[in-house]
Amino acid sequence: MNLTEIAHFRYATKVFDPDKRIPDQLFDQIKTLLRFSPSSVNSQPWHFIIADSPEGRQRLSQGALGSYAYNERKILDASHVILFCAKNAIDDEYLLHLLDTEDQDGRYADASQKDLVHQVRTMFVNLHRFDFKDAQHWMEKQLYLNMGAILLGAGSLGVDALPMEGIDIQALNEEFGLLKQGYTAVAMVALGYRKAGDFNAALPKSRRSEAEIFTVLS
Amino acid sequence: MNLTEIAHFRYATKVFDPDKRIPDQLFDQIKTLLRFSPSSVNSQPWHFIIADSPEGRQRLSQGALGSYAYNERKILDASHVILFCAKNAIDDEYLLHLLDTEDQDGRYADASQKDLVHQVRTMFVNLHRFDFKDAQHWMEKQLYLNMGAILLGAGSLGVDALPMEGIDIQALNEEFGLLKQGYTAVAMVALGYRKAGDFNAALPKSRRSEAEIFTVLS
Repeated sequence: MNLTEIAHFRYATKVFDPDKRIPDQLFDQIKTLLRFSPSSVNSQPWHFIIADSPEGRQRLSQGALGSYAYNERKILDASHVILFCAKNAIDDEYLLHLLDTEDQDGRYADASQKDLVHQVRTMFVNLHRFDFKDAQHWMEKQLYLNMGAILLGAGSLGVDALPMEGIDIQALNEEFGLLKQGYTAVAMVALGYRKAGDFNAALPKSRRSEAEIFTVLS
Repeated sequence: MNLTEIAHFRYATKVFDPDKRIPDQLFDQIKTLLRFSPSSVNSQPWHFIIADSPEGRQRLSQGALGSYAYNERKILDASHVILFCAKNAIDDEYLLHLLDTEDQDGRYADASQKDLVHQVRTMFVNLHRFDFKDAQHWMEKQLYLNMGAILLGAGSLGVDALPMEGIDIQALNEEFGLLKQGYTAVAMVALGYRKAGDFNAALPKSRRSEAEIFTVLS
Protein backbone atom coordinates (compact mmCIF):
# COMPACT_ATOMS: atom_id res chain seq x y z
CA MET A 1 0.00 0.00 0.00
CA ASN A 2 1.45 3.39 -0.87
CA LEU A 3 0.77 6.55 1.13
CA THR A 4 -2.01 7.73 -1.16
CA GLU A 5 -3.83 4.45 -0.64
CA ILE A 6 -3.33 4.64 3.13
CA ALA A 7 -4.56 8.25 3.21
CA HIS A 8 -7.78 7.12 1.57
CA PHE A 9 -8.10 3.86 3.53
CA ARG A 10 -7.98 5.52 6.94
CA TYR A 11 -10.96 7.45 8.31
CA ALA A 12 -12.51 8.30 11.65
CA THR A 13 -13.95 4.90 12.50
CA LYS A 14 -17.27 5.31 14.30
CA VAL A 15 -18.24 1.66 14.77
CA PHE A 16 -15.66 -0.95 15.78
CA ASP A 17 -16.21 -4.68 15.53
CA PRO A 18 -16.00 -5.85 19.17
CA ASP A 19 -15.03 -9.36 18.06
CA LYS A 20 -11.85 -8.41 16.21
CA ARG A 21 -8.54 -8.01 17.96
CA ILE A 22 -5.33 -6.45 16.66
CA PRO A 23 -2.66 -9.19 16.58
CA ASP A 24 0.14 -8.60 19.09
CA GLN A 25 2.83 -8.40 16.42
CA LEU A 26 0.99 -5.47 14.82
CA PHE A 27 0.25 -3.67 18.08
CA ASP A 28 3.91 -4.03 19.04
CA GLN A 29 4.75 -1.94 15.96
CA ILE A 30 2.31 0.74 17.17
CA LYS A 31 4.05 0.73 20.56
CA THR A 32 7.40 1.14 18.85
CA LEU A 33 6.05 4.18 17.00
CA LEU A 34 4.75 5.65 20.26
CA ARG A 35 8.11 5.25 21.91
CA PHE A 36 10.34 6.27 19.01
CA SER A 37 8.25 9.23 17.89
CA PRO A 38 10.20 12.41 17.25
CA SER A 39 9.55 15.35 19.58
CA SER A 40 11.00 18.83 19.85
CA VAL A 41 14.49 18.69 21.42
CA ASN A 42 13.73 15.00 22.09
CA SER A 43 11.55 16.12 24.99
CA GLN A 44 9.24 13.04 24.90
CA PRO A 45 6.78 14.74 27.27
CA TRP A 46 4.35 11.82 27.38
CA HIS A 47 2.93 8.74 29.00
CA PHE A 48 0.53 6.25 27.41
CA ILE A 49 -2.19 4.26 29.16
CA ILE A 50 -3.04 1.34 26.92
CA ALA A 51 -6.11 -0.84 27.34
CA ASP A 52 -6.22 -4.19 25.55
CA SER A 53 -8.78 -5.94 27.76
CA PRO A 54 -12.49 -5.42 28.56
CA GLU A 55 -11.52 -4.30 32.09
CA GLY A 56 -8.99 -1.81 30.76
CA ARG A 57 -11.38 -0.37 28.20
CA GLN A 58 -14.00 -0.11 30.95
CA ARG A 59 -11.63 2.02 33.01
CA LEU A 60 -10.82 4.27 30.04
CA SER A 61 -14.54 4.64 29.36
CA GLN A 62 -14.72 6.61 32.63
CA GLY A 63 -13.64 9.41 30.32
CA ALA A 64 -16.80 8.97 28.25
CA LEU A 65 -19.64 9.49 30.69
CA GLY A 66 -22.27 12.22 30.79
CA SER A 67 -21.83 14.71 27.97
CA TYR A 68 -19.00 12.58 26.51
CA ALA A 69 -21.15 9.44 26.26
CA TYR A 70 -21.10 9.62 22.44
CA ASN A 71 -17.58 8.15 22.65
CA GLU A 72 -18.31 5.38 25.17
CA ARG A 73 -19.27 2.64 22.70
CA LYS A 74 -16.18 3.32 20.57
CA ILE A 75 -13.89 2.87 23.57
CA LEU A 76 -15.64 -0.31 24.71
CA ASP A 77 -15.78 -1.93 21.26
CA ALA A 78 -12.27 -1.13 20.03
CA SER A 79 -9.48 -3.69 20.26
CA HIS A 80 -6.89 -1.40 21.86
CA VAL A 81 -7.34 2.10 23.25
CA ILE A 82 -4.50 4.49 23.99
CA LEU A 83 -4.86 7.42 26.35
CA PHE A 84 -2.25 10.02 25.42
CA CYS A 85 -1.07 11.85 28.55
CA ALA A 86 1.21 14.90 28.61
CA LYS A 87 3.61 15.85 31.34
CA ASN A 88 1.95 18.56 33.44
CA ALA A 89 5.23 20.46 33.89
CA ILE A 90 8.73 20.38 32.48
CA ASP A 91 11.60 21.23 34.80
CA ASP A 92 15.39 20.99 35.12
CA GLU A 93 15.25 17.65 36.87
CA TYR A 94 13.41 16.10 33.93
CA LEU A 95 15.81 17.65 31.42
CA LEU A 96 18.74 16.14 33.31
CA HIS A 97 16.96 12.79 33.26
CA LEU A 98 16.61 13.01 29.47
CA LEU A 99 20.28 13.93 29.20
CA ASP A 100 21.37 10.98 31.32
CA THR A 101 19.16 8.62 29.31
CA GLU A 102 20.76 9.88 26.10
CA ASP A 103 24.18 9.47 27.65
CA GLN A 104 23.45 5.88 28.66
CA ASP A 105 22.13 5.24 25.15
CA GLY A 106 25.52 6.33 23.80
CA ARG A 107 24.79 9.69 22.22
CA TYR A 108 27.65 11.59 23.90
CA ALA A 109 31.28 10.97 23.07
CA ASP A 110 32.41 13.58 25.58
CA ALA A 111 31.14 15.73 28.43
CA SER A 112 31.38 19.02 26.54
CA GLN A 113 28.98 17.79 23.87
CA LYS A 114 26.59 16.61 26.55
CA ASP A 115 26.77 19.99 28.27
CA LEU A 116 26.09 21.78 25.01
CA VAL A 117 22.96 19.72 24.29
CA HIS A 118 21.70 20.41 27.80
CA GLN A 119 22.25 24.14 27.39
CA VAL A 120 20.49 24.29 24.04
CA ARG A 121 17.58 22.15 25.20
CA THR A 122 17.18 24.18 28.38
CA MET A 123 17.17 27.37 26.31
CA PHE A 124 14.36 26.08 24.06
CA VAL A 125 12.34 24.72 26.96
CA ASN A 126 12.73 27.94 28.94
CA LEU A 127 11.59 29.91 25.91
CA HIS A 128 8.28 28.06 26.18
CA ARG A 129 8.18 28.17 29.97
CA PHE A 130 9.08 31.77 30.57
CA ASP A 131 8.91 33.77 27.32
CA PHE A 132 6.02 32.28 25.33
CA LYS A 133 4.46 30.91 28.54
CA ASP A 134 2.98 28.06 26.51
CA ALA A 135 4.92 25.05 27.84
CA GLN A 136 1.77 22.98 28.37
CA HIS A 137 0.50 23.58 24.83
CA TRP A 138 4.00 23.04 23.43
CA MET A 139 4.23 19.66 25.16
CA GLU A 140 0.76 18.70 23.96
CA LYS A 141 1.79 19.60 20.40
CA GLN A 142 4.48 16.94 20.67
CA LEU A 143 1.76 14.45 21.63
CA TYR A 144 -0.22 15.40 18.53
CA LEU A 145 2.92 14.86 16.43
CA ASN A 146 3.12 11.38 17.90
CA MET A 147 -0.61 10.80 17.40
CA GLY A 148 -0.41 11.77 13.73
CA ALA A 149 2.16 9.03 13.16
CA ILE A 150 0.01 6.51 15.04
CA LEU A 151 -3.02 7.25 12.85
CA LEU A 152 -1.01 6.85 9.65
CA GLY A 153 0.92 3.88 11.00
CA ALA A 154 -2.27 2.08 12.00
CA GLY A 155 -3.68 2.69 8.53
CA SER A 156 -0.55 1.19 6.96
CA LEU A 157 -1.23 -2.00 8.97
CA GLY A 158 -4.88 -2.12 7.88
CA VAL A 159 -5.90 -1.15 11.40
CA ASP A 160 -8.74 1.32 11.85
CA ALA A 161 -8.52 4.19 14.29
CA LEU A 162 -10.49 6.97 15.89
CA PRO A 163 -8.78 9.92 17.57
CA MET A 164 -10.91 11.51 20.30
CA GLU A 165 -10.48 14.93 21.84
CA GLY A 166 -13.97 14.70 23.29
CA ILE A 167 -13.08 12.97 26.55
CA ASP A 168 -13.48 13.96 30.18
CA ILE A 169 -9.95 15.00 31.11
CA GLN A 170 -10.75 15.52 34.79
CA ALA A 171 -12.45 12.12 35.18
CA LEU A 172 -9.48 10.37 33.56
CA ASN A 173 -6.94 12.27 35.64
CA GLU A 174 -8.82 11.10 38.72
CA GLU A 175 -9.35 7.51 37.55
CA PHE A 176 -5.61 7.02 37.02
CA GLY A 177 -4.24 9.46 39.61
CA LEU A 178 -2.42 11.17 36.78
CA LEU A 179 -1.83 14.65 38.19
CA LYS A 180 0.14 13.42 41.18
CA GLN A 181 2.28 11.32 38.84
CA GLY A 182 3.07 14.47 36.85
CA TYR A 183 0.78 13.89 33.87
CA THR A 184 -2.57 14.98 32.48
CA ALA A 185 -4.84 13.22 29.99
CA VAL A 186 -4.94 14.90 26.57
CA ALA A 187 -6.65 12.73 23.94
CA MET A 188 -7.51 9.12 23.19
CA VAL A 189 -7.03 6.91 20.15
CA ALA A 190 -9.21 3.82 19.73
CA LEU A 191 -7.77 1.15 17.43
CA GLY A 192 -9.37 -1.94 15.97
CA TYR A 193 -11.36 -2.94 12.95
CA ARG A 194 -14.37 -1.23 11.40
CA LYS A 195 -17.66 -3.02 11.69
CA ALA A 196 -19.50 -3.63 8.43
CA GLY A 197 -22.10 -0.90 8.09
CA ASP A 198 -20.16 1.90 9.83
CA PHE A 199 -21.88 4.88 8.18
CA ASN A 200 -18.65 6.89 8.10
CA ALA A 201 -16.80 4.25 6.05
CA ALA A 202 -19.29 4.69 3.23
CA LEU A 203 -19.13 8.49 3.08
CA PRO A 204 -16.67 10.15 0.70
CA LYS A 205 -13.77 12.00 2.35
CA SER A 206 -13.95 15.76 2.07
CA ARG A 207 -11.01 18.09 2.12
CA ARG A 208 -10.29 21.70 1.12
CA SER A 209 -8.99 21.97 -2.46
CA GLU A 210 -5.32 21.85 -3.42
CA ALA A 211 -5.59 25.45 -4.61
CA GLU A 212 -6.67 26.55 -1.13
CA ILE A 213 -4.01 24.78 0.85
CA PHE A 214 -0.88 24.71 -1.32
CA THR A 215 1.43 27.48 -2.45
CA VAL A 216 4.27 25.95 -4.46
CA LEU A 217 7.44 28.02 -4.90
CA SER A 218 8.88 26.45 -8.07
CA MET B 1 9.59 -1.97 5.59
CA ASN B 2 7.45 -2.44 8.70
CA LEU B 3 6.78 0.37 11.18
CA THR B 4 9.53 -0.70 13.54
CA GLU B 5 12.07 -0.44 10.74
CA ILE B 6 10.72 2.96 9.68
CA ALA B 7 10.83 4.22 13.28
CA HIS B 8 14.51 3.35 13.41
CA PHE B 9 15.31 4.53 9.88
CA ARG B 10 13.97 8.03 10.39
CA TYR B 11 15.93 10.59 12.41
CA ALA B 12 16.42 14.34 12.56
CA THR B 13 18.54 14.76 9.46
CA LYS B 14 21.13 17.47 10.01
CA VAL B 15 22.99 17.36 6.68
CA PHE B 16 21.10 16.97 3.39
CA ASP B 17 22.73 16.03 0.11
CA PRO B 18 22.09 19.08 -2.09
CA ASP B 19 22.42 16.96 -5.24
CA LYS B 20 19.59 14.57 -4.49
CA ARG B 21 16.01 15.34 -5.37
CA ILE B 22 12.85 13.56 -4.22
CA PRO B 23 11.15 12.09 -7.32
CA ASP B 24 7.83 13.77 -8.13
CA GLN B 25 5.83 10.57 -7.74
CA LEU B 26 7.06 10.27 -4.13
CA PHE B 27 6.52 13.91 -3.26
CA ASP B 28 3.01 13.68 -4.68
CA GLN B 29 2.30 11.07 -2.01
CA ILE B 30 3.53 13.49 0.66
CA LYS B 31 1.19 16.15 -0.73
CA THR B 32 -1.69 13.69 -0.56
CA LEU B 33 -0.90 13.06 3.10
CA LEU B 34 -0.80 16.82 3.80
CA ARG B 35 -4.20 17.31 2.21
CA PHE B 36 -5.93 14.19 3.53
CA SER B 37 -4.60 14.43 7.08
CA PRO B 38 -7.19 14.01 9.80
CA SER B 39 -7.92 17.03 11.99
CA SER B 40 -10.32 17.67 14.84
CA VAL B 41 -13.88 18.11 13.49
CA ASN B 42 -12.29 18.10 10.00
CA SER B 43 -11.18 21.68 10.68
CA GLN B 44 -8.12 21.54 8.33
CA PRO B 45 -6.83 24.84 9.75
CA TRP B 46 -3.76 24.97 7.51
CA HIS B 47 -1.89 26.17 4.48
CA PHE B 48 1.41 24.81 3.16
CA ILE B 49 4.13 26.75 1.38
CA ILE B 50 6.25 24.25 -0.50
CA ALA B 51 9.65 25.02 -1.98
CA ASP B 52 11.10 22.61 -4.54
CA SER B 53 13.51 25.00 -6.29
CA PRO B 54 16.65 26.92 -5.24
CA GLU B 55 14.69 30.17 -5.45
CA GLY B 56 11.88 28.80 -3.29
CA ARG B 57 14.26 27.44 -0.66
CA GLN B 58 16.03 30.81 -0.67
CA ARG B 59 12.76 32.53 0.18
CA LEU B 60 12.01 30.04 2.97
CA SER B 61 15.52 30.57 4.32
CA GLN B 62 14.41 34.12 5.23
CA GLY B 63 13.11 32.31 8.30
CA ALA B 64 16.63 31.16 9.17
CA LEU B 65 18.60 34.37 9.56
CA GLY B 66 20.23 35.83 12.65
CA SER B 67 19.74 33.67 15.70
CA TYR B 68 18.04 31.02 13.53
CA ALA B 69 20.98 30.67 11.15
CA TYR B 70 21.71 27.14 12.44
CA ASN B 71 18.80 25.99 10.24
CA GLU B 72 19.72 27.91 7.08
CA ARG B 73 21.93 25.23 5.47
CA LYS B 74 19.31 22.54 6.05
CA ILE B 75 16.66 24.57 4.25
CA LEU B 76 18.94 25.40 1.35
CA ASP B 77 20.30 21.86 0.88
CA ALA B 78 17.07 19.89 1.24
CA SER B 79 15.13 18.75 -1.81
CA HIS B 80 11.72 20.02 -0.72
CA VAL B 81 10.84 22.24 2.21
CA ILE B 82 7.34 22.65 3.61
CA LEU B 83 6.33 25.63 5.72
CA PHE B 84 3.35 24.62 7.85
CA CYS B 85 1.05 27.62 8.37
CA ALA B 86 -1.97 27.71 10.69
CA LYS B 87 -5.06 29.79 10.24
CA ASN B 88 -4.75 32.82 12.51
CA ALA B 89 -8.44 32.75 13.44
CA ILE B 90 -11.40 30.43 13.01
CA ASP B 91 -14.82 31.96 12.49
CA ASP B 92 -18.35 31.12 11.38
CA GLU B 93 -17.64 32.02 7.76
CA TYR B 94 -14.85 29.44 7.60
CA LEU B 95 -17.00 26.78 9.27
CA LEU B 96 -19.72 27.36 6.67
CA HIS B 97 -17.08 27.05 3.95
CA LEU B 98 -16.00 23.66 5.36
CA LEU B 99 -19.62 22.58 5.50
CA ASP B 100 -20.25 23.56 1.88
CA THR B 101 -17.09 21.78 0.77
CA GLU B 102 -18.25 18.62 2.55
CA ASP B 103 -21.67 19.00 0.96
CA GLN B 104 -20.16 19.33 -2.52
CA ASP B 105 -17.99 16.29 -1.79
CA GLY B 106 -21.15 14.32 -1.11
CA ARG B 107 -21.12 13.83 2.65
CA TYR B 108 -24.69 15.01 3.30
CA ALA B 109 -27.71 13.06 2.19
CA ASP B 110 -30.07 15.67 3.61
CA ALA B 111 -30.12 19.18 5.05
CA SER B 112 -30.87 18.12 8.61
CA GLN B 113 -27.69 16.03 8.78
CA LYS B 114 -25.71 18.94 7.40
CA ASP B 115 -27.21 21.27 9.99
CA LEU B 116 -26.38 18.84 12.78
CA VAL B 117 -22.71 18.58 11.76
CA HIS B 118 -22.50 22.37 11.63
CA GLN B 119 -24.00 22.69 15.09
CA VAL B 120 -21.67 20.12 16.62
CA ARG B 121 -18.58 21.52 14.92
CA THR B 122 -19.48 25.07 15.94
CA MET B 123 -19.93 23.89 19.53
CA PHE B 124 -16.45 22.30 19.60
CA VAL B 125 -14.80 25.26 17.91
CA ASN B 126 -16.52 27.72 20.23
CA LEU B 127 -15.37 25.69 23.22
CA HIS B 128 -11.80 26.45 22.13
CA ARG B 129 -12.56 30.04 21.14
CA PHE B 130 -14.56 31.17 24.13
CA ASP B 131 -14.27 28.65 26.98
CA PHE B 132 -10.72 27.28 26.80
CA LYS B 133 -9.56 30.40 24.91
CA ASP B 134 -6.92 28.28 23.17
CA ALA B 135 -8.18 28.27 19.57
CA GLN B 136 -4.74 29.18 18.18
CA HIS B 137 -2.96 26.38 20.05
CA TRP B 138 -5.77 23.97 19.21
CA MET B 139 -5.40 24.74 15.50
CA GLU B 140 -1.62 24.38 15.72
CA LYS B 141 -2.08 20.98 17.39
CA GLN B 142 -3.90 19.86 14.24
CA LEU B 143 -0.84 20.95 12.24
CA TYR B 144 1.41 18.86 14.46
CA LEU B 145 -0.91 15.89 13.90
CA ASN B 146 -0.43 16.39 10.18
CA MET B 147 3.34 16.86 10.59
CA GLY B 148 3.66 13.61 12.54
CA ALA B 149 2.16 11.72 9.62
CA ILE B 150 4.48 13.49 7.17
CA LEU B 151 7.58 12.50 9.16
CA LEU B 152 6.52 8.85 9.31
CA GLY B 153 5.27 8.86 5.73
CA ALA B 154 8.55 10.31 4.46
CA GLY B 155 10.44 7.62 6.35
CA SER B 156 8.28 4.92 4.74
CA LEU B 157 9.40 6.25 1.33
CA GLY B 158 13.07 6.26 2.34
CA VAL B 159 12.99 10.05 2.39
CA ASP B 160 14.85 11.86 5.19
CA ALA B 161 13.29 14.71 7.08
CA LEU B 162 13.98 17.43 9.61
CA PRO B 163 11.18 19.17 11.50
CA MET B 164 12.13 22.68 12.61
CA GLU B 165 10.40 24.77 15.25
CA GLY B 166 13.42 27.07 15.37
CA ILE B 167 12.37 29.45 12.61
CA ASP B 168 11.68 33.17 12.52
CA ILE B 169 7.87 33.27 12.45
CA GLN B 170 7.70 37.02 12.04
CA ALA B 171 10.16 37.10 9.12
CA LEU B 172 8.24 34.34 7.33
CA ASN B 173 4.87 35.98 7.94
CA GLU B 174 6.30 39.13 6.35
CA GLU B 175 8.08 37.36 3.45
CA PHE B 176 4.84 35.68 2.35
CA GLY B 177 2.30 38.26 3.55
CA LEU B 178 0.72 35.51 5.60
CA LEU B 179 -1.13 37.44 8.28
CA LYS B 180 -3.24 39.38 5.82
CA GLN B 181 -4.15 36.10 4.10
CA GLY B 182 -5.36 34.74 7.45
CA TYR B 183 -2.41 32.49 8.29
CA THR B 184 0.70 32.41 10.44
CA ALA B 185 3.87 30.34 10.03
CA VAL B 186 4.22 27.57 12.63
CA ALA B 187 7.00 25.13 11.75
CA MET B 188 8.99 23.85 8.81
CA VAL B 189 9.85 20.38 7.55
CA ALA B 190 12.86 19.88 5.27
CA LEU B 191 12.77 16.73 3.16
CA GLY B 192 15.47 15.12 1.07
CA TYR B 193 18.26 12.64 1.45
CA ARG B 194 20.90 12.45 4.16
CA LYS B 195 24.44 13.25 3.12
CA ALA B 196 27.04 10.61 3.91
CA GLY B 197 28.77 11.69 7.11
CA ASP B 198 25.78 13.36 8.79
CA PHE B 199 26.87 13.01 12.42
CA ASN B 200 23.32 12.47 13.60
CA ALA B 201 22.77 9.44 11.37
CA ALA B 202 25.60 7.62 13.15
CA LEU B 203 24.39 8.30 16.69
CA PRO B 204 22.12 5.77 18.41
CA LYS B 205 18.53 6.89 19.01
CA SER B 206 17.69 7.56 22.64
CA ARG B 207 14.27 7.29 24.17
CA ARG B 208 12.77 6.98 27.65
CA SER B 209 12.25 3.36 28.67
CA GLU B 210 9.08 1.37 28.04
CA ALA B 211 8.56 1.17 31.81
CA GLU B 212 8.51 4.97 32.05
CA ILE B 213 6.10 5.66 29.24
CA PHE B 214 3.66 2.72 29.15
CA THR B 215 0.95 1.64 31.56
CA VAL B 216 -0.82 -1.38 30.11
CA LEU B 217 -4.26 -2.25 31.48
CA SER B 218 -4.48 -5.94 30.63
